[in-house]
Amino acid sequence: MHQMLVLTPQPDDYLRLITEAALPDLQVVASADVADGLARGGHSDILLGDPTRVKAALPHLPQLVWTQLTWAGVEPMLDPSLRRDYVLTNIRGVFGPLMSEFVFGYLLLFERQVLARLESQRAHRWDTTLPGTLRGRTLGLVGVGSIGTHLAGTARHFGMRVHGYTRSSRACADVDQYFHGEDRTAFARGVDYLVITVPNTSETRALVDAEMIGALPPHAVVINVGRGRTVDEAALAEALQAQRLGGAVLDVFSEEPLPSTSPFWTTPNTFITGHTSAPSFPRDIVGVFADNYRRFHAGHPLRHRVDFERGY
Amino acid sequence: MHQMLVLTPQPDDYLRLITEAALPDLQVVASADVADGLARGGHSDILLGDPTRVKAALPHLPQLVWTQLTWAGVEPMLDPSLRRDYVLTNIRGVFGPLMSEFVFGYLLLFERQVLARLESQRAHRWDTTLPGTLRGRTLGLVGVGSIGTHLAGTARHFGMRVHGYTRSSRACADVDQYFHGEDRTAFARGVDYLVITVPNTSETRALVDAEMIGALPPHAVVINVGRGRTVDEAALAEALQAQRLGGAVLDVFSEEPLPSTSPFWTTPNTFITGHTSAPSFPRDIVGVFADNYRRFHAGHPLRHRVDFERGY
Repeated sequence: MHQMLVLTPQPDDYLRLITEAALPDLQVVASADVADGLARGGHSDILLGDPTRVKAALPHLPQLVWTQLTWAGVEPMLDPSLRRDYVLTNIRGVFGPLMSEFVFGYLLLFERQVLARLESQRAHRWDTTLPGTLRGRTLGLVGVGSIGTHLAGTARHFGMRVHGYTRSSRACADVDQYFHGEDRTAFARGVDYLVITVPNTSETRALVDAEMIGALPPHAVVINVGRGRTVDEAALAEALQAQRLGGAVLDVFSEEPLPSTSPFWTTPNTFITGHTSAPSFPRDIVGVFADNYRRFHAGHPLRHRVDFERGY
Repeated sequence: MHQMLVLTPQPDDYLRLITEAALPDLQVVASADVADGLARGGHSDILLGDPTRVKAALPHLPQLVWTQLTWAGVEPMLDPSLRRDYVLTNIRGVFGPLMSEFVFGYLLLFERQVLARLESQRAHRWDTTLPGTLRGRTLGLVGVGSIGTHLAGTARHFGMRVHGYTRSSRACADVDQYFHGEDRTAFARGVDYLVITVPNTSETRALVDAEMIGALPPHAVVINVGRGRTVDEAALAEALQAQRLGGAVLDVFSEEPLPSTSPFWTTPNTFITGHTSAPSFPRDIVGVFADNYRRFHAGHPLRHRVDFERGY
């Protein structure tokens, strides 16, 4: 018999969905409160939760063998002061479709001039300004992992060209042209929309720097759904303020919540979305967990295992 | 040798693109002005233009054999006082992708609560409200022609269910469930987003009436990219005003430009887009025309021929 502790803001949803999955030899305690969860489930060998709660619970679970995060991002778990004597798995695969909804919702907001039309409407003015179209535009993906691959598929559906900037991978067939290493500015020069999807690692920190931002065309829009530290935020804010860019859609920041003093609240054509681009819906997360639990129970390797050294 | 008169707001673009197409035995006169065009090209056997200009020029072209419209909508040509002694073709096939951008841009605006997030941003508030998702939602198509078929494909890409209301057709494989005839309210009850794509004919007039609007779920959003007369506009305005609907995106109206006295300017959660959902980009139109001209020149049947009796 395995014992699992679930620590999330939606303990009832998780308990119901895990019960419905009818997993063998599994007892579950679920709570939104770490202390309450530990009091009732401190002897658990499996932990499922969001990074903040998992980090708080980690030192108090002597029998821990496996932790399944409910997020894609794993940075809090990489803190060198934390234990690493357990298997850590994260969520991959389910965020691609949600990220696609987010990214293309905002791309179409720009192309269709939705806000300008709304201004006309408020003035009771029949606005026949011709819209733009995504067809023929170029989407530039910084990182082509599972999320980037899904975005590339959606871009192709809308008739866009897709450029990808990766360390070395050329695995995604929906990418028309790949760039690597020193090709950063050549990559930036050719894109209409730049979408950052890479995780936060030592290699990606400030990858989108002043030089890369400066190479973007003046109509380009920067969309960050990866991690704030991948971008030189000061350089981006300056470019937006000077209107050297078409705009930005920023879901993530180096400091969250975004401080009230941040320039991004008021830079032109900027959309701030509070780290909501691809939420962890319990049904999706339990689907990934249930598949992994069956592997765990059968003694097979788990999916989406995080390499503590590599950082993802 | 054939002689063609082109009457559009973009005569230079059309002239350049038609010249580039290098069509055999074709001389072209292009103008934005009907009188000017007739003065120079009154002996033309081919006419290409938008419905308003075409209607004005029709009585003055004694040698007319074929008219290619630059629009999908053909109503002005159906006026019983106008001649019908020529072949009329319209544009089909190129508007589906543009309509898809329009419809899904607004669907995502609703699901992602874009305007509410923008309000938070204006108050410098970090808004972590969870978004909705299109996945699992039901798109209801009133009419599943070439545009509806394209919308169904995009809906499937985003993981939506698709219901279709048609006279009898069941041709589109991306439609999960079909409804016909008296099933109008059963159809309406099951949809989250209702998209109207049918042409304006005697059969579609006020098809979306008070009964059908009343059967929609209270969160449903109505999107009209067909023709204004397909909807009972008074009933729709009343439902929106009473917030018995989630909202509306209205590109077309029975009277255009929309009169300044229309209630739609101020009904809640309503977006007015000035008949811009799928503009006729000259490159697309010339592509359709060039294909048809080669058929005409070879004596083959033309594509997208309009049946004056049927009305589309």
